[in-house]
Amino acid sequence: MPEITLVGTGGMMPLKYRWLTSCYIEHNGSAVLIDCGEGTQIALAQAECKISRINVLLITHTHADHVSGLPGFLLSLGNSERTEPLDIYVPYGKTKIIKNLMCICDRLDFDVRIHELSTKDESSFIAETIDPMLEVRSLPLRHSCDCLGYSLTFRRKQVFLPDEAKRLDVPLEKWKILHRGESVLLDDGRTITPDMVTQNSRRPIKITYVTDTLPFAAISEFAYGSQLFICEGMYGDRDKKKSMNHKGHMLMQDACRLAQNAQAEQLWLTHYSPAEFYPENYSKELKKLFENIVISKDGQKTEIKD
Amino acid sequence: MPEITLVGTGGMMPLKYRWLTSCYIEHNGSAVLIDCGEGTQIALAQAECKISRINVLLITHTHADHVSGLPGFLLSLGNSERTEPLDIYVPYGKTKIIKNLMCICDRLDFDVRIHELSTKDESSFIAETIDPMLEVRSLPLRHSCDCLGYSLTFRRKQVFLPDEAKRLDVPLEKWKILHRGESVLLDDGRTITPDMVTQNSRRPIKITYVTDTLPFAAISEFAYGSQLFICEGMYGDRDKKKSMNHKGHMLMQDACRLAQNAQAEQLWLTHYSPAEFYPENYSKELKKLFENIVISKDGQKTEIKD
Repeated sequence: MPEITLVGTGGMMPLKYRWLTSCYIEHNGSAVLIDCGEGTQIALAQAECKISRINVLLITHTHADHVSGLPGFLLSLGNSERTEPLDIYVPYGKTKIIKNLMCICDRLDFDVRIHELSTKDESSFIAETIDPMLEVRSLPLRHSCDCLGYSLTFRRKQVFLPDEAKRLDVPLEKWKILHRGESVLLDDGRTITPDMVTQNSRRPIKITYVTDTLPFAAISEFAYGSQLFICEGMYGDRDKKKSMNHKGHMLMQDACRLAQNAQAEQLWLTHYSPAEFYPENYSKELKKLFENIVISKDGQKTEIKD
Repeated sequence: MPEITLVGTGGMMPLKYRWLTSCYIEHNGSAVLIDCGEGTQIALAQAECKISRINVLLITHTHADHVSGLPGFLLSLGNSERTEPLDIYVPYGKTKIIKNLMCICDRLDFDVRIHELSTKDESSFIAETIDPMLEVRSLPLRHSCDCLGYSLTFRRKQVFLPDEAKRLDVPLEKWKILHRGESVLLDDGRTITPDMVTQNSRRPIKITYVTDTLPFAAISEFAYGSQLFICEGMYGDRDKKKSMNHKGHMLMQDACRLAQNAQAEQLWLTHYSPAEFYPENYSKELKKLFENIVISKDGQKTEIKD
């Protein structure tokens, strides 16, 4: 099951006591990284995440606090003797910025494959290099530049029903094939389809990551039913609302309302302003808006289980 | 007098316990920064250096561990409400790399003036925005890409001799003019020149900074007479010599020999390999080669006095 580490929780600039917002999601020995600001490679080491396992990098947008760590990250990946390609996903039209930043990465022994995602509509793809059942979706957000929210949905194999397989006289060597979702033709001419010997009792695991943006209703639809919703909350002080509107950000209270409407199971706040020294001070007030909230700290981890 | 802070001491990649090599030199409220790798802005904050005071940035070369922190640094300078221009000096032909990195810095309210320095010959300029008497010199080094060493020479005002000025009946209001190096014409027709009322007893202060390079004799000439010579020493293990030659680096022992030949007063080692966990282990051996050596640590400071 995926293990999620919120590597950093800061916005705007890295601080000596708070890394920039970034998230590492490991599953079956491979990992997705979301965003890579200055210092993210150090934050990953501090949080005991293995950069060598990262096969997919999702970039929300190309403001410096979300991408400036990219060249150092790529070089460190190279130093880990990587040869497998790395897939980087960016908002539409931003390949050039990634390539510009890579002008100081002249010694990479692996391919960097850059993919652009729509900034007009939702889009989705299967992250094959992590898991053929992992679907990544992106949602255009409302920020001062093109920005994407991401959700990761880990679909899960059906539960195999051995009693049913036995009852239907399916030979043992065919069970694996049926379990991975393919039909089989038996010697006696019968076709057995997967649904005859499996049961879909495992719900998918969904993680949604949204920063930097104004709050708006479609975010809740996008995050609907997430076991974990990670969302920006720049400030807890309601007096900052106007300035947040102006800058394309949201308050912690906005994030709570989005989580409530999304019927998310848990909300992790992140992307605090450098001027928000004690985000935990708002805990009591925020719990009234959304009970299962975590005022995240750098390096916070969880494993989502059944 | 200049105060020097060795902000970080690491090479290749930033570590959770060691920042990348960078040096901050403050003088009269203005500062020079040498190199700006990933995390340097955090290291500066940790070492209590004021980034808002930096008027000149000297880049040794454009490998990522020396420049990848540039975009974040510039944006943080911008956030400190800077309006004065920043001068960046780079090896010849590297303006494009700096501009590429700046593609994520679209909100700067100050000018960034990029100057290229020869990679064939020594060159020098006066760092006017720090001190009209500060001369910066650059030396082409021998690395796997074009790379420059830098020396900073703070020339100092002559000592004014009030007794001599009185003896010569120079009116008090003319003293300042003479002390700053200009001649004056007195009412009685006599011309007084600065040398008549001053004495050059203050030697210049010289700081030399050399990384990344093979060791070679001209480095000692370049650093000759420095009160402080900051030099790379990737490893203390002599068995690494061949690999250092191959990579265009040097051992700590090489740095000691250069310091000895330069008749430097003090040597600070820096730019340790990430695989060199305990550089201080070589202290005893190195002191035999050059007694006044410091196995530097991040944030090390000194003020050079008379």
